[in-house]
Amino acid sequence: MFRQLFDDATSTFTYLIADEQTGSALLIDPVHEQFDRDRLVLEELGLTLKYVLETHVHADHITGGGRLRHELGAEFIVGAGTGLTCADRLIADGETLSMDGITIQAFATPGHTDGCTSYLWQDRLFTGDTILINACGRTDFQQGSAENLYRSIHRLLALPDETLIYPGHDYNGHRVSCVGQEKAINPYVAGIDQPAFVAKMAALNLPKPRRIDVAVPANSLCGGADVARGEGETETAPAKAS
Amino acid sequence: MFRQLFDDATSTFTYLIADEQTGSALLIDPVHEQFDRDRLVLEELGLTLKYVLETHVHADHITGGGRLRHELGAEFIVGAGTGLTCADRLIADGETLSMDGITIQAFATPGHTDGCTSYLWQDRLFTGDTILINACGRTDFQQGSAENLYRSIHRLLALPDETLIYPGHDYNGHRVSCVGQEKAINPYVAGIDQPAFVAKMAALNLPKPRRIDVAVPANSLCGGADVARGEGETETAPAKAS
Repeated sequence: MFRQLFDDATSTFTYLIADEQTGSALLIDPVHEQFDRDRLVLEELGLTLKYVLETHVHADHITGGGRLRHELGAEFIVGAGTGLTCADRLIADGETLSMDGITIQAFATPGHTDGCTSYLWQDRLFTGDTILINACGRTDFQQGSAENLYRSIHRLLALPDETLIYPGHDYNGHRVSCVGQEKAINPYVAGIDQPAFVAKMAALNLPKPRRIDVAVPANSLCGGADVARGEGETETAPAKAS
Repeated sequence: MFRQLFDDATSTFTYLIADEQTGSALLIDPVHEQFDRDRLVLEELGLTLKYVLETHVHADHITGGGRLRHELGAEFIVGAGTGLTCADRLIADGETLSMDGITIQAFATPGHTDGCTSYLWQDRLFTGDTILINACGRTDFQQGSAENLYRSIHRLLALPDETLIYPGHDYNGHRVSCVGQEKAINPYVAGIDQPAFVAKMAALNLPKPRRIDVAVPANSLCGGADVARGEGETETAPAKAS
């Protein structure tokens, strides 16, 4: 079972993957403000949330993982490169998460941040901000590295052309792509070698993300300071912070 | 097992679906000139071609189904609305094709032509020329009807948002979309009611397809007159015709 959810305020995709036989579910990149939506979807589908997977420490939104972990008992999983001591599991490159009939493979894809991780389920790749549709994540904060991002993008694009790409965001109404499409027409990929990519990224000159000063500290604590300390009211910490 | 193949000359997608356990395979919308490619792919993957499914009687290319049927023994299946007496099976709206562990459901989707059929496999919808990515099929020949096409498009777009859309063609490098994306940004769908759609289609004023006078007669004979009569050399009939 698969659902693609969207947060309008931050243009963030959240993905639900569940085993229909057992009802076990995981969420990739939930958004704090969408906790009620996510809980309702789980309830309506009769699912039990087992895991929250984060593609990285987000700068544009606070993860819903803190509250989902605290209230629904989900385990919080993030890439080993983040070094987040608050996580239940740090998943390293090549490691897999098994949940009943579902297997998720982790790809360490540093570049947008140094702890970025992409997740492969069957032929569906969840790229976070490593590959966006016709675009890619920026590299000008959080240990961003255009050289690393170039390598990570091309490592993922070595998967079969049919591999579906589900990004962490889209700002133009797109929802899904595939490796073949991104290789053919993504302007950060097609005909762009590493020096050209690095130069292109350096020239972007983007404004600072509006929520970065709130989101990165909260996400570095797996969704909120209270949650990280195990003290309780996850609802209030990120809400106050924002 | 799933493969998306592309014919550069006519920008046509051919889809391969196979059961990995048994090796049984089907092709959707093969192209005559790509017979060798298709046979090679089947051989390399160790597959046996059981069925060729056509989304419609194409005007822009000759189906590979004639030769695949003759040389590889595949059954030729096309929508009941085509009335093609040369077919092995005319599949009607709501009917399914079962091939080992694979089930394909047919949706009669008249509009681009009156015999157009879309095929649903799991959450993957093969729309032929009914829905293209950011576009749709034209309605100015082969019993085309903008009124019917509008109904067919919206019937398909009533499927869940995550349903993947694999079109019959793309001219801009796109390969895959989904129901949610097409509802959001396809300019023939988003914010377009039926009268606006009909007016938009009537104003297109497109040139006549280059191959229509060859392709439609050949495809109306399931890929070639020789094949339809069972007389033999499928290789030459379409080649001569083009």
